[in-house]
Amino acid sequence: MYQSETTVRVRYGETDQMGYVYYGFYAMYYEVARVESLRQLGVTYSEIETMGIIMPVLENKSKYLAPARYDEVLKIVTTIREKPVLRIKFEYEIYNEADKLIHIGETLLVFVDKQTNRPRKPPVEMENVLAPFFS
Amino acid sequence: MYQSETTVRVRYGETDQMGYVYYGFYAMYYEVARVESLRQLGVTYSEIETMGIIMPVLENKSKYLAPARYDEVLKIVTTIREKPVLRIKFEYEIYNEADKLIHIGETLLVFVDKQTNRPRKPPVEMENVLAPFFS
Amino acid sequence: MYQSETTVRVRYGETDQMGYVYYGFYAMYYEVARVESLRQLGVTYSEIETMGIIMPVLENKSKYLAPARYDEVLKIVTTIREKPVLRIKFEYEIYNEADKLIHIGETLLVFVDKQTNRPRKPPVEMENVLAPFFS
Amino acid sequence: MYQSETTVRVRYGETDQMGYVYYGFYAMYYEVARVESLRQLGVTYSEIETMGIIMPVLENKSKYLAPARYDEVLKIVTTIREKPVLRIKFEYEIYNEADKLIHIGETLLVFVDKQTNRPRKPPVEMENVLAPFFS
Repeated sequence: MYQSETTVRVRYGETDQMGYVYYGFYAMYYEVARVESLRQLGVTYSEIETMGIIMPVLENKSKYLAPARYDEVLKIVTTIREKPVLRIKFEYEIYNEADKLIHIGETLLVFVDKQTNRPRKPPVEMENVLAPFFS
Repeated sequence: MYQSETTVRVRYGETDQMGYVYYGFYAMYYEVARVESLRQLGVTYSEIETMGIIMPVLENKSKYLAPARYDEVLKIVTTIREKPVLRIKFEYEIYNEADKLIHIGETLLVFVDKQTNRPRKPPVEMENVLAPFFS
Repeated sequence: MYQSETTVRVRYGETDQMGYVYYGFYAMYYEVARVESLRQLGVTYSEIETMGIIMPVLENKSKYLAPARYDEVLKIVTTIREKPVLRIKFEYEIYNEADKLIHIGETLLVFVDKQTNRPRKPPVEMENVLAPFFS
Repeated sequence: MYQSETTVRVRYGETDQMGYVYYGFYAMYYEVARVESLRQLGVTYSEIETMGIIMPVLENKSKYLAPARYDEVLKIVTTIREKPVLRIKFEYEIYNEADKLIHIGETLLVFVDKQTNRPRKPPVEMENVLAPFFS
């Protein structure tokens, strides 16, 4: 299991007239969280695309436990529970400034060769940095 | 069961550098679909808020079967399968211009009294228009 | 001069906690308006990109005269005042449901050859359909 | 004159199929920049709203000099050139990771009393912290 932490500050444009973060913007927070999660391991998603690999999303799930509000700094704990083979699943827990768990999410992505458009295994660079967490 | 249909055209700003609709924008399409779904019954979400009721999202799930692309007119079939009591679940099937099913989603919302911030039953207006579909 | 009209309905996710459309989402409305403006002439931006031409934005200006609100159907009048040579300028007037002018904007775009990354003239198809309006 | 600096990292969802940051997302970057600019002075926009003051946008202008790309950390230099009276203007210069100026923008906002919906002067707290820069 690999776990990491990152933060995002809620932007005004991400709130809606209910005064909460619009439910659709959490996916953007997930993206920030998983990209930072990989970066902390030394792999950037940007480099992965340069290698000719894209990682489209297959599934996404969200549970909204309590609202997030404007200007709050949200803490996102990201977990990779299983060693990625053809797919990689990220799980997220989001905490507000009072350290209350307000949101749970998960995203399943697939590794795709950009040229052939076919599924493939993760880049070696990613396998290498993740290996110690799944042995 | 109540079912309705609506369309959205993919905006350029909704695509990402993969050339697909960014996974986070589907939630916005769901919102359009469920609001139009209610409107076709004669209820607008806007009026519901005017009555002092808000409908925050509790859960959201998405399956990305195939990418949606810029400028495509997507058909969204929205289904309410169960009579809403304190919560209402919308299911969505999204079809591309070739009428291929490319996406499945569902959203669970709760009826909340804006003043007391407590769950409540749906507005009578909504119950009335939905009743014929669940008898 | 060429002028056309289109409408957009305000989505919930486009509002902010002020209860207005977030100022950043008007650019998305402009995009819808100018794309529909060209479509009404028989040219789609999608085809233009297929020809190997992209149209990045050089300048954008907005005046917010009055707020737009959730679920309103906004009417956007789009004007091309000058015959496009290397650049094309779109002007927008946005009217709310009470037919009140609430917003003015303009966007300047440039025609770029995707291969060479250099400015070029508009595709002949666009020149042809626009010609009658600038003679 | 008051000047400050902040950074934003480009999110995947902010790119479009051209491979650039979508032109409409710069307004969100401006928002981050001006809010951080005030925060560095000790004033948060969130507190301003709590005092019953909102700051809707009146005008916005953008010049796109060169594209911003996915995952880049953009530096935004924010300038308040004139002492705010009923309105406040923020100017932005955005630099990419190569420290190249890629974007210029400005936003004019107005101070509005939320109750009366009428223009008013800035909150005393803001006047106090800005005073030393305009004497």
